[in-house]
Amino acid sequence: MKKIGIVMGSVSDMPVIEKAVAVLDEFGAPYEVRVLSAHRTPEEARAFAALAKDEGFGVLIAAAGMAAHLAGAVAANTTLPVIGIPCKGPVLDGIDALLSTVQMPSGIPVATVAVNAGANAALLSLQILALSDEALAKKLEEKRRRDAEKVLAADMEVRARFQK
Amino acid sequence: MKKIGIVMGSVSDMPVIEKAVAVLDEFGAPYEVRVLSAHRTPEEARAFAALAKDEGFGVLIAAAGMAAHLAGAVAANTTLPVIGIPCKGPVLDGIDALLSTVQMPSGIPVATVAVNAGANAALLSLQILALSDEALAKKLEEKRRRDAEKVLAADMEVRARFQK
Amino acid sequence: MKKIGIVMGSVSDMPVIEKAVAVLDEFGAPYEVRVLSAHRTPEEARAFAALAKDEGFGVLIAAAGMAAHLAGAVAANTTLPVIGIPCKGPVLDGIDALLSTVQMPSGIPVATVAVNAGANAALLSLQILALSDEALAKKLEEKRRRDAEKVLAADMEVRARFQK
Amino acid sequence: MKKIGIVMGSVSDMPVIEKAVAVLDEFGAPYEVRVLSAHRTPEEARAFAALAKDEGFGVLIAAAGMAAHLAGAVAANTTLPVIGIPCKGPVLDGIDALLSTVQMPSGIPVATVAVNAGANAALLSLQILALSDEALAKKLEEKRRRDAEKVLAADMEVRARFQK
Amino acid sequence: MKKIGIVMGSVSDMPVIEKAVAVLDEFGAPYEVRVLSAHRTPEEARAFAALAKDEGFGVLIAAAGMAAHLAGAVAANTTLPVIGIPCKGPVLDGIDALLSTVQMPSGIPVATVAVNAGANAALLSLQILALSDEALAKKLEEKRRRDAEKVLAADMEVRARFQK
Amino acid sequence: MKKIGIVMGSVSDMPVIEKAVAVLDEFGAPYEVRVLSAHRTPEEARAFAALAKDEGFGVLIAAAGMAAHLAGAVAANTTLPVIGIPCKGPVLDGIDALLSTVQMPSGIPVATVAVNAGANAALLSLQILALSDEALAKKLEEKRRRDAEKVLAADMEVRARFQK
Amino acid sequence: MKKIGIVMGSVSDMPVIEKAVAVLDEFGAPYEVRVLSAHRTPEEARAFAALAKDEGFGVLIAAAGMAAHLAGAVAANTTLPVIGIPCKGPVLDGIDALLSTVQMPSGIPVATVAVNAGANAALLSLQILALSDEALAKKLEEKRRRDAEKVLAADMEVRARFQK
Amino acid sequence: MKKIGIVMGSVSDMPVIEKAVAVLDEFGAPYEVRVLSAHRTPEEARAFAALAKDEGFGVLIAAAGMAAHLAGAVAANTTLPVIGIPCKGPVLDGIDALLSTVQMPSGIPVATVAVNAGANAALLSLQILALSDEALAKKLEEKRRRDAEKVLAADMEVRARFQK
Repeated sequence: MKKIGIVMGSVSDMPVIEKAVAVLDEFGAPYEVRVLSAHRTPEEARAFAALAKDEGFGVLIAAAGMAAHLAGAVAANTTLPVIGIPCKGPVLDGIDALLSTVQMPSGIPVATVAVNAGANAALLSLQILALSDEALAKKLEEKRRRDAEKVLAADMEVRARFQK
Repeated sequence: MKKIGIVMGSVSDMPVIEKAVAVLDEFGAPYEVRVLSAHRTPEEARAFAALAKDEGFGVLIAAAGMAAHLAGAVAANTTLPVIGIPCKGPVLDGIDALLSTVQMPSGIPVATVAVNAGANAALLSLQILALSDEALAKKLEEKRRRDAEKVLAADMEVRARFQK
Repeated sequence: MKKIGIVMGSVSDMPVIEKAVAVLDEFGAPYEVRVLSAHRTPEEARAFAALAKDEGFGVLIAAAGMAAHLAGAVAANTTLPVIGIPCKGPVLDGIDALLSTVQMPSGIPVATVAVNAGANAALLSLQILALSDEALAKKLEEKRRRDAEKVLAADMEVRARFQK
Repeated sequence: MKKIGIVMGSVSDMPVIEKAVAVLDEFGAPYEVRVLSAHRTPEEARAFAALAKDEGFGVLIAAAGMAAHLAGAVAANTTLPVIGIPCKGPVLDGIDALLSTVQMPSGIPVATVAVNAGANAALLSLQILALSDEALAKKLEEKRRRDAEKVLAADMEVRARFQK
Repeated sequence: MKKIGIVMGSVSDMPVIEKAVAVLDEFGAPYEVRVLSAHRTPEEARAFAALAKDEGFGVLIAAAGMAAHLAGAVAANTTLPVIGIPCKGPVLDGIDALLSTVQMPSGIPVATVAVNAGANAALLSLQILALSDEALAKKLEEKRRRDAEKVLAADMEVRARFQK
Repeated sequence: MKKIGIVMGSVSDMPVIEKAVAVLDEFGAPYEVRVLSAHRTPEEARAFAALAKDEGFGVLIAAAGMAAHLAGAVAANTTLPVIGIPCKGPVLDGIDALLSTVQMPSGIPVATVAVNAGANAALLSLQILALSDEALAKKLEEKRRRDAEKVLAADMEVRARFQK
Repeated sequence: MKKIGIVMGSVSDMPVIEKAVAVLDEFGAPYEVRVLSAHRTPEEARAFAALAKDEGFGVLIAAAGMAAHLAGAVAANTTLPVIGIPCKGPVLDGIDALLSTVQMPSGIPVATVAVNAGANAALLSLQILALSDEALAKKLEEKRRRDAEKVLAADMEVRARFQK
Repeated sequence: MKKIGIVMGSVSDMPVIEKAVAVLDEFGAPYEVRVLSAHRTPEEARAFAALAKDEGFGVLIAAAGMAAHLAGAVAANTTLPVIGIPCKGPVLDGIDALLSTVQMPSGIPVATVAVNAGANAALLSLQILALSDEALAKKLEEKRRRDAEKVLAADMEVRARFQK
C-alpha cells in the first residue's frame, strides 16, 4: 500500500494533524508526518514533494494557517494528489487559510477540505488509495456504516427523550 | 481505466463543466457527464452516487452554485473520492457555494477546488486515477512541463519587452 | 393539530433544538425530535421527509451547522414547509451554515431563521400551523403581548433608573 | 383560499416581485401586491400588517434591499407567517439585505429565502397555504415533478452530447 | 438645552448604553433612556420618535443588535438627527447590526457609529447640540484637549521606557 | 444659517457629491465643496477642518473611498459634527471605505451613512442644522411627506396593475 | 542604483504591472520584469529570488491573484524587501489574493499594498531605495508636491463650480 | 545606522509593539517608540512623520486598530517607507484595521503586514535598512537559517514520534 505523507507548516498545527493521524491509525494505513514550512524551509518542502512519488507516497496532506501556501507549494512540485487543510490562525477564523489553500490557479489543483478538518483529510486520502485497494474500500464502507449507526443510536435516544 | 463521472446541478453550470471536459478530452480519459440536482432530482443523484463504483467510475466531480449541496449529497452515497466545484451564482461571487461545498462535517469529505475551477477539478481527478496508471502519470508530468514552458516563453517575451 | 417535526444533523446542535422545544412545550404543541444527518444517514433523512406529510407532520424544522445541507435535503423530499436553522460551528460564526441553508435554488425554498435561532424556528412553525387553528393564533398573539409587556416593564425600570 | 400579500419596499424591487407573481399566477393563487416602505410610509406598512389577517391574507411576502427592515417591520405587526426576500442593492451583493432580514431577534421570526429569490418566496407561501388545501398540495407536488422532469430531460440531452 | 433620547432594543444592550450615559453625565447633559423594541413594541417606538421633538429632544440615539432595525424605525418617524449604534450580538461580531443600521435607503439617514461605540454616540450627540450652545462646544474642545493630553502622557512614558 | 462644508478625497467621488449637492440646492442651503485629500494634501485638509467653525460652517460632510481616512482626519481637527460617506472603489464594493469610516476610535466620532449615500449625507446635515432653524425643519417634514406620497402613488399604481 | 525586480504570476496581471512600470519609467529607475509562477515554475521563481541580491536587485515586487503565493514564495528565498500586490481575480474582488499575500507567518514578511495597486508598489520600492539615494528622495518629494498640486487645482476648479 | 521609528495609536496596541521591539533588540537595532494618535494628536503625528527623516529615522512602523488611519497619516507626511500593522480590535478580528491600512490611494503606499504582526514589521524594517548595511543583511540571513533550523528540529522530532 502506498504511504500517506502528512506535512504541517508549523507545530502549532499539531492538533489538526493528530485528528488525521488518529483516522489513519484506525485504518492501519502507513504514513509519515513532517514539519515543513513553505516559507522557512522552502527547499525541504520542495524536495519532499518532488521525491514523494519515488519514495512510495501515494497522497500528500498539507496543513497550514494564515497565508497558507504549504499545500500549494507541495502541489507545485508533484503530480500526486495533494489535500489541503486550512488551519484556523489567531485571527479571521481560518478564512485566510481557506482562500489561500483553495483558490489555486489553473494547472495546480489542491483538494481542499474544511477548516481544521484533519479527520476528513485523512479519510479523503484513504478514499483515493482505496481505488486500487478493495480491502481498504470495504473498511471505508464499514466506517460509513458505523458512523451512520452512531447517528441512528443518537436518533433513538433523542426520540425517546422527546416523546410528546 | 476507470471513468470519471461529472455531475452538474443545473445546465447553467455548463461553462464550468466544459472546462473540465476539455481537459479530459486532452488526456483521452473516459468520462460521463450528467445533470443531477441534489434538490430537484435527489433520488437520481443518490442512485448515481451509490451505483457509481459498480458502474466503473473511479472519481466523481460535482459542480453546483448557491447552497451547493450536490457534491456533499454525492459524497454521502459513495466512498469514491468526490471533487466539488463551487460555481459563482447570480450574487456573492461564489462564496456561498464555496462554503456549502468545502465545510463538510467529519466523516464525509469533499475535495474542493477553486470557484468555477472546472479545469483543476479534471486535473485532480486525473492525478487520482494516475496513482494506478503510470502512463497517465507521465502525461500529467508532461502537461506540467508544457504549462511551465508557456510561463517561460511569456517570461522571455516580457523580459525582452521591458529591457531598461 | 398537525405535528412539528424537528431534525438536527448532529447531537451537538441540541442546545439550539432545546430552545425550539421549550417554545413548543410552552404552547403545548405536538412534536417529534429526530437526529438525522444529510450526509451520514441520507436515506433516513430522505425517508423522514418523504413520509412526513402522511405521518401527520405539518411543518418541519431542520438545524445543522457548517455546510448545512439538512434543511435543503429535507425540503427536496417534501412539499411541507421546511424551516432551516443555521447553527454556529467551530469556526466562521455560522456564516457557512447560513449561506448553505438560505441560498437554495429556485423550486425548493427553505424558510431560514437567524443563526442558532431555535426559539424563532418554533414560533414560525406555530405561526404556520395557526393559519388553520384560531386557538393557536390567539396564543401567539398573547405571547406577543407578554413579550411586549416584558419590554415595557424593562422600559419603566430603566426610565426610573436613568432619570436626569 | 387565503390571499398572499406581497409588499416591496421600492418599485426598484419589481423584477424580484414579478418572479413571485409569475409563480402565483401559474398556480392561480389569489394575491395582492403593494408598495410600502418601512421607512418612508411606516404607518401604512404597519396598518397593512396589522389588518392583513382580518382582510383575508394568510401569508405575507416582503422584499427589500440594503438595510432591509420591511419584512421585520411587517412581522412585528402580525402573527401571520412573513416571508422575507433580501434584494441585491447597488453594492454588497445583497449581503446587507440578507443579514437585515434573517437575523431577527427572538420572538419575531422572518422566514428568509435567498437573495432575490422571488419565485421561492411564492412557492414557500403556497407550501404554507397547502397545509389546509389538499388540491394546492397536489399542484405543488406536480410542479416538483415537472421541475424534476426538466432536469431529467437536460440530463438525457447532456449524456447524449458528451458520450465518450 | 435640548434633551438627548437614548433607546435600546433590549436590556442586553445596556453595557453599550452605559458608556453613552457616562459621557453625557460627564458633560452634565440632559437625557432620557428608554427600552423600546422595533419588533416587540413597534407602536411605542414609533410614538417615542414621533413625539420626541415636541417633548424637547434634540437628538436621538438608538442601539440594537442583530437585524438592528431600531435606529431606522426611529429615524422613519422623526426628522431629528438619529444616531445608530450597532451592537455585537451572539454571532457575527456586529457586522449584521452594522449593515442593518448604516445601509439606510435614500431619504431616511441614520448617523452610524462604530460597533458598540456608546461613548462616541454620546459625543456625536453633544457635537450636534453644541452647534447652538457655545458653552458645550467649549467643553467638547476641552475634552479633546484632555484626550490628547492622555495620549501625550502615554507617549512620554513609552518614550522613556523604550529609550535605546 | 450655517454653511455645510463638503469635502471629497478625489474628483472621482464627484457623482456621490453631486447627489448631496442636489439635495442642498433643493433646500436652498448654503454650502461649499472642496477637494481635499487626507493623504495628498493633509495640511489643507487639517486647516479646512480646524478653521471650519470660525468660517461659518455648521456641519462637514466628507466622502472618500478605499482606506477612507478623510472623514476621520477632518473629525480629528474639529468638534463640528462630521458626516462620512464611504465611496465604492474599484474593488470590494465599498466595504473597505465603510469600515475605514465608521470604525472610529473612542473620542472622535464620524456620523457614517451608507456606501455612496450622498443624498442621505446632505439630508442628515440639514436635520442637524434644523435643530435651530424651524423653517428648515418644516421643509424636511414636507420632503418626508413628498417622499411618502411618491411611495403611496407607486402603491396605487402597483395595486391596480396586479389586481387578481 | 540597485535594480527593482518585478515578477508577475501570470501575463493576465500585466495591466497591474504596467502601472508599476509607468512609475519607474517616470523616475528613470532601473528595473527588470519577469513572468514567474510560484506554482508552474517554482524552481525559476526560487532561483530568481535567491540570486536577486547578487544580481544587483535592491527590492522585489511580486503581483499575483487568487491564492497569491508568489510574493511569499519570493520572500521565502531572499532577505531583500519584497512588496506584494494582490491582484483581483475572476471572483471575490481580490480578497483571496489580499489575504494570501498579507497574512504571512512570523519570520517572512511581505510588504503588501492595496489590491491591484501597481503604482503604489513602484513608489514604495523607490521610497526604500531612496534611503541611500538622496537624489531619488528629492524626486519622490517633488512627486508628492505635484500630486498635491493636482488636488489643489481640482479643489480650485470645484470651489469655483460650486459657489453658492 | 538609521533609526526605526515605531508609533502606536493607543497603548492598548502595546503587546503588538513588544513583539516588534523584541526583534529589534535581538538585532541591536536603534529605535524609538512613540504613542501618537492620528485622531487625538493629529498634529504630533504629523510632526513626527514630517521631521522623521531629518531626525535620523530610516523606516517608520505604525500600529493601529479599528479605522486604522495612523500608518496612512504618517505616510502622508513623509517619503520614508512606512510599515503598517493592523491591530485586532474588540470586534471584527482586525479586518477593519487591515482594510483601513492596506487600501491606500495611489501616491501614498503603506507596506502592510499581517494582523498583529509586530515581529514581521520589525523584520521588514531591518530588511529595508539592510540594503545599505551588509552586516545587518548577514544577520538577517543568519536568523533565517536559525528559523529554518527550528523547523528542521521540529521535523526530526515529529518524524521520530510518528514513525509507523
